[in-house]
Amino acid sequence: MARPAPLSGFPEWTPAGALVEQRLTDSLRHTFELHGFTPLETRAVEPLSSLLLKGETSKEVYVLSRLQQFQGQDQALIRLDAKTLGLHFDLTVPLARYVLQQAGQLEFPFKRYQIQKVWRGERPQAGRFREFVQADIDIVGQDRLPFHHEVALPLVMAEALSGLPLGPVQVKVANRKLAEGFYRGLGLEAVDEVLRVVDKLDKIGPQTAVELLRSQAGADAAQAEACLELAAIHGADPEAVQRAVWGLAGRHGVRSDLLAVGLGEVTALLERAAAVQPGAVAADLKIARGLDYYTGSVYETFLVGQEDLGSICSGGRYDSLASDGARTYPGVGLSIGVSRLVSWLLGRDLVQISRQTPTAVLVAVVDESDRPRSEALARALRRRGIPTDVAPEAAKFGQQIKFAHRRGIPYVWFPGLDQAPDEVKDIRSGEQRPANAASWNPPPADLWPRLEAGAAD
Amino acid sequence: MARPAPLSGFPEWTPAGALVEQRLTDSLRHTFELHGFTPLETRAVEPLSSLLLKGETSKEVYVLSRLQQFQGQDQALIRLDAKTLGLHFDLTVPLARYVLQQAGQLEFPFKRYQIQKVWRGERPQAGRFREFVQADIDIVGQDRLPFHHEVALPLVMAEALSGLPLGPVQVKVANRKLAEGFYRGLGLEAVDEVLRVVDKLDKIGPQTAVELLRSQAGADAAQAEACLELAAIHGADPEAVQRAVWGLAGRHGVRSDLLAVGLGEVTALLERAAAVQPGAVAADLKIARGLDYYTGSVYETFLVGQEDLGSICSGGRYDSLASDGARTYPGVGLSIGVSRLVSWLLGRDLVQISRQTPTAVLVAVVDESDRPRSEALARALRRRGIPTDVAPEAAKFGQQIKFAHRRGIPYVWFPGLDQAPDEVKDIRSGEQRPANAASWNPPPADLWPRLEAGAAD
Repeated sequence: MARPAPLSGFPEWTPAGALVEQRLTDSLRHTFELHGFTPLETRAVEPLSSLLLKGETSKEVYVLSRLQQFQGQDQALIRLDAKTLGLHFDLTVPLARYVLQQAGQLEFPFKRYQIQKVWRGERPQAGRFREFVQADIDIVGQDRLPFHHEVALPLVMAEALSGLPLGPVQVKVANRKLAEGFYRGLGLEAVDEVLRVVDKLDKIGPQTAVELLRSQAGADAAQAEACLELAAIHGADPEAVQRAVWGLAGRHGVRSDLLAVGLGEVTALLERAAAVQPGAVAADLKIARGLDYYTGSVYETFLVGQEDLGSICSGGRYDSLASDGARTYPGVGLSIGVSRLVSWLLGRDLVQISRQTPTAVLVAVVDESDRPRSEALARALRRRGIPTDVAPEAAKFGQQIKFAHRRGIPYVWFPGLDQAPDEVKDIRSGEQRPANAASWNPPPADLWPRLEAGAAD
Repeated sequence: MARPAPLSGFPEWTPAGALVEQRLTDSLRHTFELHGFTPLETRAVEPLSSLLLKGETSKEVYVLSRLQQFQGQDQALIRLDAKTLGLHFDLTVPLARYVLQQAGQLEFPFKRYQIQKVWRGERPQAGRFREFVQADIDIVGQDRLPFHHEVALPLVMAEALSGLPLGPVQVKVANRKLAEGFYRGLGLEAVDEVLRVVDKLDKIGPQTAVELLRSQAGADAAQAEACLELAAIHGADPEAVQRAVWGLAGRHGVRSDLLAVGLGEVTALLERAAAVQPGAVAADLKIARGLDYYTGSVYETFLVGQEDLGSICSGGRYDSLASDGARTYPGVGLSIGVSRLVSWLLGRDLVQISRQTPTAVLVAVVDESDRPRSEALARALRRRGIPTDVAPEAAKFGQQIKFAHRRGIPYVWFPGLDQAPDEVKDIRSGEQRPANAASWNPPPADLWPRLEAGAAD
């Protein structure tokens, strides 16, 4: 078999990279569970009809067929019908389906986290992932979901992300009610079109945005200008944001109850966030989120000083995640693009792992006949929670030390010869001293491999 | 949207079941890492050509096509070509490909664990999973892999499984060299055919087995009988197994170096296992494993007293996991069918989780205006690693206690009124006492939900 090539769009890491990703997601998990979110894993497939609900035909879906349908031929006519399955492209569609299906068994509000792969059946192209891991948290209510969850959720994410060696992180918030109230108060009824243009503002620039607002959303020059002025309002100080929005509304003669409600939500969020995690949350009213199902707060999250990466974690409030006719399930959710983040961090060497294996100690083997003694020492260390490996070959000790060195294993354990005590060598310092497997402990920082900020930090 | 129905073959658990599965796999992970296995996750897809290597056409594979290929129609002619992708049906094919692809970056022996979903594109039928989680450990060498790894691996698995609330577990071992040496020594050349019949022995019974050995493997009556006698040899005592095999060989005039090597390996494995984990490993020479790539030890694992479940963890030694022409990569691996195990345990109530949410404490909310104080108390508890939630609504305290009770949250925290100290109630005992969020600790057993042996234990 020739050496296989990687598949474009299907990222895979080296063992060290896989450890980085795992430790990142472990840290996220820990924070999510501290906040009472319960783990969930849904199946990877949904009926194609569910995946294409809400006219989401722009989603690129992988369709499954069974090899048997090809009956040994190299082509087959595949029909899409009610039983056709596709791979999920996000974790929100499966959550909505799961909530409806399991509603009788769930306690609401249902707080779940889900760290799982999703797939996009795109044409291969540089920089686009066709398989990637997302880490989502959502809080789903039955019929109602109080606003305070829209405050709590971004703070959980800010805490989760601040637990990673990424440097400072800021969640930027806007509010769909605020935007819609303002646009309607201006006399613009094509709210979705305005939001779609604002969503692209950073990419297309203000001049093109004004043109599009005029041609696609029916805005006149003053209305288009007012939309851009609203999008320019940002900051963490709730009073300043409030003054800026009311000032702008006043200048344009906008009066809107919906605007007042939305602005009240943004300022309440900023106030509580400032009290709890100063700097973690700021308003940025150009955050529009293209998707039309958001109905309240919308969020994007940036690494401070690394804004070129784009939002690493986005989401918002939706009044109807799902509905079975009798009941509706409103929710608020945030989603981290884990693979994209890991790819970026590894590619720029911004995060490293202290070693490429869980092993803290390598027990040397004197000769093959003595392997059982080395195994027994390893068992004694493992019983006390110290991850330990035994040298695979009874090579010269220099070779065994090199083996540990290549993997970044910090300690090599030498079984004592002729009644002499065992010795343990810290191969970073070279220091070697007598030790007893029943009592020796490495410093806690050496016990398990840990994430570290990389070169650029 | 009507209430969705489950999809046959795609298991999903309730939140409590999902916690059970997660805690089970966390425990496995912990043991694998203690033994120096590093985590790996491979992409979910492989080129169809790799999935069908080795003539494995009997594997039921899900083939992927992009929705765009249907161009808006409800059917399309899908061609299988060199770029066609399929979902992996095990974790061994991806490991072989990964090792070849990354060989330059890997340190050998490469010890990895992988806990990941696999898919089988089968026709839906009761009791068969089309999506399930496997937990694999493998040790892969470059060009060589000493026998001692065949001893270590089942002991790691026995330890990992004994860390779960499953009751006693036993790994049963046989050896491909032993079997092949014996069959050839008997004069039977159709070794694979004999193994396939022996593999089915428990299902088909001895009489049918004899018939099949005669019709499919060219055995005469005495040879068939000898094969069944070999398959009947079992036990944990290495000397007894040795005596039984040599006695049988003597009676049938079998002399074989390969038999001697294989028997030596089985007895060495039993001896070392008995010294380390008495009872964890026993020989059972009817273990044949249908797959033709095993070349040394083969393993199956059973819950003692629950043998009707079948093997929960199987694998063996293969001399050529992969080869790139210049080098070969021998390995030894074991694979747990996690979803099947979890389904069985949950279905029979053999394992439970102490509560259906990570939350240990619910902080009550006196009224909505006082929510920030409850949030602050929750933060103080979380800072000390106590998973804490805040009541979603400022309902009557009785309602808030009921909310905690329904989820199995053991403690409810009441913020003190009018300078009074806070109080914490253990809702299982009803005991309520003053407490300080800066110092109170629940007993360690209440900190995180834990796996417990279920009703039938």
